[in-house]
Amino acid sequence: MRTMKAQVVESPNKMVYKDIPVPKIGDDEVLVKVKLCGICGSDWSIYTGKYAAEKLPLITGHEFWGVVDEVGKNANGLKIGDRVAVDLCLTCGSCYFCRRGDGLLCKTFTQLGIHTNGGFAEYVAVPWKNCYLIPDEINDYDATVIEALTTAIQASARMDCPLGASVVVIGAGLGVLHASLAKLRGATPVIIIDGNHDRLEIAKKMNAADFYVNINETPDTVTEVFKLTDGIGADFVIEAVGSSKTYEQAFAMLRRGGKLEAFGICASDDMASLSPFEFVLGEKKVSGSCAGIGNDWGIAINLLQYKRIDPTPMYSMIVPLAELEDALHEIQANSKLMKVFVSPEATDRKMF
Amino acid sequence: MRTMKAQVVESPNKMVYKDIPVPKIGDDEVLVKVKLCGICGSDWSIYTGKYAAEKLPLITGHEFWGVVDEVGKNANGLKIGDRVAVDLCLTCGSCYFCRRGDGLLCKTFTQLGIHTNGGFAEYVAVPWKNCYLIPDEINDYDATVIEALTTAIQASARMDCPLGASVVVIGAGLGVLHASLAKLRGATPVIIIDGNHDRLEIAKKMNAADFYVNINETPDTVTEVFKLTDGIGADFVIEAVGSSKTYEQAFAMLRRGGKLEAFGICASDDMASLSPFEFVLGEKKVSGSCAGIGNDWGIAINLLQYKRIDPTPMYSMIVPLAELEDALHEIQANSKLMKVFVSPEATDRKMF
Amino acid sequence: MRTMKAQVVESPNKMVYKDIPVPKIGDDEVLVKVKLCGICGSDWSIYTGKYAAEKLPLITGHEFWGVVDEVGKNANGLKIGDRVAVDLCLTCGSCYFCRRGDGLLCKTFTQLGIHTNGGFAEYVAVPWKNCYLIPDEINDYDATVIEALTTAIQASARMDCPLGASVVVIGAGLGVLHASLAKLRGATPVIIIDGNHDRLEIAKKMNAADFYVNINETPDTVTEVFKLTDGIGADFVIEAVGSSKTYEQAFAMLRRGGKLEAFGICASDDMASLSPFEFVLGEKKVSGSCAGIGNDWGIAINLLQYKRIDPTPMYSMIVPLAELEDALHEIQANSKLMKVFVSPEATDRKMF
Amino acid sequence: MRTMKAQVVESPNKMVYKDIPVPKIGDDEVLVKVKLCGICGSDWSIYTGKYAAEKLPLITGHEFWGVVDEVGKNANGLKIGDRVAVDLCLTCGSCYFCRRGDGLLCKTFTQLGIHTNGGFAEYVAVPWKNCYLIPDEINDYDATVIEALTTAIQASARMDCPLGASVVVIGAGLGVLHASLAKLRGATPVIIIDGNHDRLEIAKKMNAADFYVNINETPDTVTEVFKLTDGIGADFVIEAVGSSKTYEQAFAMLRRGGKLEAFGICASDDMASLSPFEFVLGEKKVSGSCAGIGNDWGIAINLLQYKRIDPTPMYSMIVPLAELEDALHEIQANSKLMKVFVSPEATDRKMF
Repeated sequence: MRTMKAQVVESPNKMVYKDIPVPKIGDDEVLVKVKLCGICGSDWSIYTGKYAAEKLPLITGHEFWGVVDEVGKNANGLKIGDRVAVDLCLTCGSCYFCRRGDGLLCKTFTQLGIHTNGGFAEYVAVPWKNCYLIPDEINDYDATVIEALTTAIQASARMDCPLGASVVVIGAGLGVLHASLAKLRGATPVIIIDGNHDRLEIAKKMNAADFYVNINETPDTVTEVFKLTDGIGADFVIEAVGSSKTYEQAFAMLRRGGKLEAFGICASDDMASLSPFEFVLGEKKVSGSCAGIGNDWGIAINLLQYKRIDPTPMYSMIVPLAELEDALHEIQANSKLMKVFVSPEATDRKMF
Repeated sequence: MRTMKAQVVESPNKMVYKDIPVPKIGDDEVLVKVKLCGICGSDWSIYTGKYAAEKLPLITGHEFWGVVDEVGKNANGLKIGDRVAVDLCLTCGSCYFCRRGDGLLCKTFTQLGIHTNGGFAEYVAVPWKNCYLIPDEINDYDATVIEALTTAIQASARMDCPLGASVVVIGAGLGVLHASLAKLRGATPVIIIDGNHDRLEIAKKMNAADFYVNINETPDTVTEVFKLTDGIGADFVIEAVGSSKTYEQAFAMLRRGGKLEAFGICASDDMASLSPFEFVLGEKKVSGSCAGIGNDWGIAINLLQYKRIDPTPMYSMIVPLAELEDALHEIQANSKLMKVFVSPEATDRKMF
Repeated sequence: MRTMKAQVVESPNKMVYKDIPVPKIGDDEVLVKVKLCGICGSDWSIYTGKYAAEKLPLITGHEFWGVVDEVGKNANGLKIGDRVAVDLCLTCGSCYFCRRGDGLLCKTFTQLGIHTNGGFAEYVAVPWKNCYLIPDEINDYDATVIEALTTAIQASARMDCPLGASVVVIGAGLGVLHASLAKLRGATPVIIIDGNHDRLEIAKKMNAADFYVNINETPDTVTEVFKLTDGIGADFVIEAVGSSKTYEQAFAMLRRGGKLEAFGICASDDMASLSPFEFVLGEKKVSGSCAGIGNDWGIAINLLQYKRIDPTPMYSMIVPLAELEDALHEIQANSKLMKVFVSPEATDRKMF
Repeated sequence: MRTMKAQVVESPNKMVYKDIPVPKIGDDEVLVKVKLCGICGSDWSIYTGKYAAEKLPLITGHEFWGVVDEVGKNANGLKIGDRVAVDLCLTCGSCYFCRRGDGLLCKTFTQLGIHTNGGFAEYVAVPWKNCYLIPDEINDYDATVIEALTTAIQASARMDCPLGASVVVIGAGLGVLHASLAKLRGATPVIIIDGNHDRLEIAKKMNAADFYVNINETPDTVTEVFKLTDGIGADFVIEAVGSSKTYEQAFAMLRRGGKLEAFGICASDDMASLSPFEFVLGEKKVSGSCAGIGNDWGIAINLLQYKRIDPTPMYSMIVPLAELEDALHEIQANSKLMKVFVSPEATDRKMF
């Protein structure tokens, strides 16, 4: 039997690097040989048992891309050797939500690498319909950012800011992608807010915004946003932190008639105190989303292919698959680490 | 000097029926001889000093229509004798908000009969551009409902429910118009919720909904809404009460991906506790508005002209202008009174 | 081997009523026992060889509904005995168009009863995901109209007329459904135009419009539309005939800034002569569609369940399956016949 | 009496440079001292009597900006010395179209410098509400491009391309701004087509597109667009030439489901031959517009202030006001001349 190396979370805080069988694919699947897989905060949450503990043992890792290694008989338009990114969303296609095009709300929604085995392994089996071809113009590292970019693309589509609108992004983690996309949609000005100097520096290197606000150097960020928007407030605010307090700040920064785009995930019982008066008389709006899905992959690929986004300043290091557990701990300890890639093929670390 | 009868709120709780000069019109105005003026909750708020006290003395009344009596020299398309409804919104046309078409957010927003003299008088001077011709097909009573209908039309446009969406309306005051418009947009089912038996009966007479839920006969309205929507929750909920508690209920009734349309006005410090988790993972949306403006008048007139709405069941009585103060008190005391019209020409009450 | 009766178009103008094997279903399919199947113009086109001749032999019929008779092992939420309507669209789910949600443009688009065997038989095998449950509130005849209604629902969504907009429908065949939906969206006025007195009478019985214009009694329909819209022209015009000449008329009837909703299918070389000047200076818009798909079925079912549409006046007769070929010829000869249903179970004709 | 220099078109092909009285302003106006005024094709059309001949004598010039020199008593937020750009659209505010927000369709639509005196003079009187403050970050030349940019902004808003959509622009005159805005909205790829080498070079210097197609070096542009879009066709095509033949090409380049954005002005009797079949089965869409209006000025200013657009490569030369007539003729003769500015203050030409 053909085997592969994989990092298996066997129980909370127990990750085992071992040989297991290469997955067998069904007629509607392809086998992908993983080239790189980015580390996401949710990998830490699953590893530590905070999320999806009922799914263990599990191979996590959803920010992956690879090369087609084997093709199921129903697969169309894919051949061995193709570089592919993979939409991680698995939806039923027939529930109330899927029928309305709201796949992220599917009643049986699951995601590759979160609820089923993912990319921290040499191989992963995926539905062929979830595969998107990666053109040669996209280098290996940028290909690994496709998934993260899809989450920002989904949010951008829902925010739907017009040309010349002001956009504030709170949080400079994935927020740097939100800000970059706001700029890419012609928003003016784009303002990014964070308390971490290193992350703001990365945002600057990406030229992601017009104004970079460090909360530790700013007496009051709400006041600052009003100042930077001629006393009007922001047309749009994206919360990309995940705390009820920043949601309340985001709401306060909005101009009347402005829209809060919710992205940062709070605990389900972390309630924000919002004023209905501001919904009615202030016409403040809210919408939100948590992930990319479907053609967001196609769009992300287009944007990278045509160099509309250059995520290079986000890259911190590459680690061999064998060192994944160490890397997870290092990311927690070192806020300078932003995008860390895991490679089943690498034998040494590489820093960017 | 030409004089007229008017009801002047001179100070909180002091309304004086007296003779005052007929207003002189400017070049951009017309003089309207008031035929009927509906009583709104805001008339009580101003009368009792709870709202706009700094504007006193003031003639209130904004749900009026009348006949053109005199025409300013710049007025175009209007002549003496025309029946007109009047958009009560006075906007600057050049602020940040007006330039974006958000007139209700105008920096110097004021309304006829709320911040300037209105319709509880024999005559009122209004900008000619705010006048909308009332076709003969609309009877005198229905014409008085145009303004209330515009508020629901504005909310309907923002809610923007598609064919076959489920819509819940909380509150059967103006809510009966919201429900009627939801039906008129092809929503299914339409559910209206209130605790007042009489108001729900009026809603039934208007055939405004598919389901009429009396909160006093229903253990839990949120559960009831889920039951009536096959366990999904409502695609849209309109809050037309104005309390943080009902806003929280409205939010709880929404299906994932659903939209809360905010309409009921709360105190500015009456905060609702909402879960950002539900914005992000549940994709729940919020938008809102408080009034009609501009072409909402044209639309309201179209709907009444072509009999798409029959508000007759809402009508309670007509009172002479001289009895306005009494009527204000009676409405507070008697929840059976829904739409009460004031007539400067009537000498006796008429019940519907 | 289990057999069934079916009407097979073996070659152009040759339809054979015969016994053939009941279709075997795959894991992703269900077997539907057909109750009723409406006759559509495309059935005539295929029968006479004008359309899809390369698909023969074929069982046509796509306006069908039935009862689940057998369930494939992957089918979810369906059981034997369920009444179901069936989305006839078969899409790949992964082409450029499907990934953008444009299933009607799928590169391998086919439809049940048009490109694959359909409902003029006792049984038909269909993908389980295409099935929509029909609630008890919808009677057998109305259930047969679901498919036709979905085509109008798709067009209505694309037209997206606001409350109080004027809508002209040219053609009173399927046009009666377009007009009914325009009314159901709150359009005012709704104007329907046709040259067939009987069809206009059916439209009147359905109360589908505000004005019914017979082109044989009207010197110039464009002038008439301008008259009925106060000299402005129509906000929206739906062409539901399928001729370049009516498309040009439709364009001429539009007000500046208005939108032509294209629905009637012309030959691909039947060109309309349109003025780019009117696109630019007149801001006239065009969009179009040809069929319903996906959740249009859910919406059609909602509208019938809640009695928002009553198609009864459209019904002409039911014929036994054995008489299908005769019925096809009769429809061509008798313009009074509107909706004709075919029943595999009936032994006699029934007129409405 | 105070006089000024002005270029007056007295009759077709007769432009007279002379002293005339400085305009007197009304209460709702300001007097603007013109700094620069760009030359537009419509200036040639009026000069030669092809357009608006009934308006002569007239001072043309609508691409102007200047400094506030005198302030009418109703003017708000403006003071002497302010740099202002001026929305040239004069609308009634109360017709069918204005009430729907369709100011460009106003029944009495006129434009400064086209139907009333404009910027080829030392001073021009304009409504104060049409003035937009120009921030210091925008240099004098860029300020002159604001008006042209507004026309592209209006078209961009109507086109409403999503992230990653392919956009073709036919015509590299104003088309370079359309292409720049498509890129600024995140379109991929952006393709610009023209037959003029010099204009394509300017487009390249502006980095306005991903592909520059010279029709003289390309056997078939429709085929080329399909090649550059992986055989799909363009999601959007903007016609910025103004000929029925290019409109037909634009329609042919569209992918199924794509949208033609009409901008180039044809003669009103120059008809395009379009296939309704492609509207219905191909779901091809059309919308259009001809100018900027209202807040398009605010947006254009934002984009220039934040350096989202750098129009410098478009600049050809500045000529003194006295040389306007010569310059008009030179532009006709020399296709290398793109943006030519006229200055009432300059005494010599300056080339860029």
